[in-house]
Amino acid sequence: MDRTERITAFTDAVMAVAITLLVLNLEVPVLADPSASELWRSLRDLLDDFAAYLLSFALVGRFWLLHHRLFERLREFDQRLLLLNLAFLALIVLVPFGADLLDRYGKLSPACVVFASVIGLAALTHGAMIRHAERAKLELRPHEMGPVRLVGVAGLFLASVPVALLSTWVAQGMWIATLFLPTLRRQGKS
Amino acid sequence: MDRTERITAFTDAVMAVAITLLVLNLEVPVLADPSASELWRSLRDLLDDFAAYLLSFALVGRFWLLHHRLFERLREFDQRLLLLNLAFLALIVLVPFGADLLDRYGKLSPACVVFASVIGLAALTHGAMIRHAERAKLELRPHEMGPVRLVGVAGLFLASVPVALLSTWVAQGMWIATLFLPTLRRQGKS
Amino acid sequence: MDRTERITAFTDAVMAVAITLLVLNLEVPVLADPSASELWRSLRDLLDDFAAYLLSFALVGRFWLLHHRLFERLREFDQRLLLLNLAFLALIVLVPFGADLLDRYGKLSPACVVFASVIGLAALTHGAMIRHAERAKLELRPHEMGPVRLVGVAGLFLASVPVALLSTWVAQGMWIATLFLPTLRRQGKS
Amino acid sequence: MDRTERITAFTDAVMAVAITLLVLNLEVPVLADPSASELWRSLRDLLDDFAAYLLSFALVGRFWLLHHRLFERLREFDQRLLLLNLAFLALIVLVPFGADLLDRYGKLSPACVVFASVIGLAALTHGAMIRHAERAKLELRPHEMGPVRLVGVAGLFLASVPVALLSTWVAQGMWIATLFLPTLRRQGKS
Repeated sequence: MDRTERITAFTDAVMAVAITLLVLNLEVPVLADPSASELWRSLRDLLDDFAAYLLSFALVGRFWLLHHRLFERLREFDQRLLLLNLAFLALIVLVPFGADLLDRYGKLSPACVVFASVIGLAALTHGAMIRHAERAKLELRPHEMGPVRLVGVAGLFLASVPVALLSTWVAQGMWIATLFLPTLRRQGKS
Repeated sequence: MDRTERITAFTDAVMAVAITLLVLNLEVPVLADPSASELWRSLRDLLDDFAAYLLSFALVGRFWLLHHRLFERLREFDQRLLLLNLAFLALIVLVPFGADLLDRYGKLSPACVVFASVIGLAALTHGAMIRHAERAKLELRPHEMGPVRLVGVAGLFLASVPVALLSTWVAQGMWIATLFLPTLRRQGKS
Repeated sequence: MDRTERITAFTDAVMAVAITLLVLNLEVPVLADPSASELWRSLRDLLDDFAAYLLSFALVGRFWLLHHRLFERLREFDQRLLLLNLAFLALIVLVPFGADLLDRYGKLSPACVVFASVIGLAALTHGAMIRHAERAKLELRPHEMGPVRLVGVAGLFLASVPVALLSTWVAQGMWIATLFLPTLRRQGKS
Repeated sequence: MDRTERITAFTDAVMAVAITLLVLNLEVPVLADPSASELWRSLRDLLDDFAAYLLSFALVGRFWLLHHRLFERLREFDQRLLLLNLAFLALIVLVPFGADLLDRYGKLSPACVVFASVIGLAALTHGAMIRHAERAKLELRPHEMGPVRLVGVAGLFLASVPVALLSTWVAQGMWIATLFLPTLRRQGKS
């Protein structure tokens, strides 16, 4: 268990920085003639950005919970898991970029395609880590969440890629739906 | 105790990044015709920003102390505590945004309302963590600070929201007053 | 082993922040007249930046793997190792700057010279750490990767400095080649 | 020793972020008409910024070494040490701002006064932590570096504040001199 500590420390730090950089997408409005009413108005315009911030934070937060749950079950790790973990992190680091794109062009399909691809691929990579850990018998005890359920999240995000070309609203609805998938509740007490 | 380590590591990293991003609000002035006297003058204009930096740093620093004190008492944690902790972090990450808003529009009520809401909700969420830990018997030993006292901080900040609509000065005075609440002193030696 | 923990924690945090700052180089395009087709076009222009991001992420990620492997073998450390580690980190922190330079001026030799120097010097410093650890008998067990192989990476990057003055394409090809050096595979199971 | 772990983790994370943010001061030049020779020229103009980066990195790196050395000697800590540590971190977080000021206005006295004050006060606060740890008998074994020697660093930086009003060159020379103070060498093996 000890040897996995440094990987989780590095992963936690990368996820923590990525999740905190999301705040940089909330830009304080620049007002030519500042007044309370004008500031209220421009803050109201930020509500979309704020919703994108909350969605991204919730998604990265859930990845952290999943990663936490996987690694507390690990007995050891191998080179392949390390590389999968780095690939996973490379996708997590892209989330602030995807969220920024969404902030500015959320109604255009390319922004939704990029965001959904980043999250979908991250979920897929995390699923590959779980699967590899099971096959290579790296785990102390069986993982309670089968890859099937995680593929549910990955599947919904990747399925939303073609959907976004038709309607960005439906695609974004699919993303929000993933937040209510029963992944977390049924996982038991940890 | 061991199992709480990774949560505190992630929390510490998020709080550390958020507290350090506060410095990005201190923008080096751009001078058309730089001279020592002009630079002194524009640095003096930064004093307000600097005060906002110190206040925000002190507030996040105190949250870190409270979090530290709560988690060193925890024996175990459950899913609900994890989710409350993520909600708490989502609010902490908003502090640099709120501080930036305060830097630029500190005399307008909306900026004060946003800042006070972020801090007030963070204090409330932290209070909910303490309360949940007590009720679910997650703690090793009784927590010395009752939720009542923390609600004092949350209460003052949330009460300053309507006050800010009348006077931003009084609201900011209430914030500074919270720094002198006896929460820290009486907590004993830890 | 215990005493090396704090150095690795600090190193991990610095590398995690540096690797995450790479995403700031991917700037969301500002479109005068946003439409799906125009956004697709400007995202296509970002592909170069994206390739630079992936290359930099892979390079820093590999440094992290090497550092991890060195430090899990350390029994103790001395002042010299600490200073070498700080010099190594000072170079890692420069990677986002080098990557940004590459993003914007990747076809000009100075950008390639700077990027190759930063990575080459970082590899050299890491090689010096390994060598010092071996000589000063700081290691628990012999390090499997001789400095020779690491000097391979350092050598290719430093050799690409003069090459970049003639052809930036060849230099960049040399960098990509280093990713396929057998450093990681043959290192065994950790 | 265990209970100090979380403080050092938080401190390390804050210092790691602050030290990495220094790279944001190295701005990639924007060239109207990019060519290799013009890029070389503008990179040469960055040499001053680069020197400021190295100096700041070395100073924060040394603070990390000192902090490391203090905390590995600690048996326990109290509220006062926690508050001193937060004050120390509030100053460390200001270093990127001070370094940015120095980058742009290094020849003007106000920039030097601010930078020297930040570093000097940080050294003073660190000295206060050492002194408090000794007096309150928080240490496992006597600290090898008397506060006197640390006050040497603090003293040189604070003394450079009035000097900077006369000559920024002399002040900056005093800073560089502190890097060669024997603090690190004679500290022995840790």
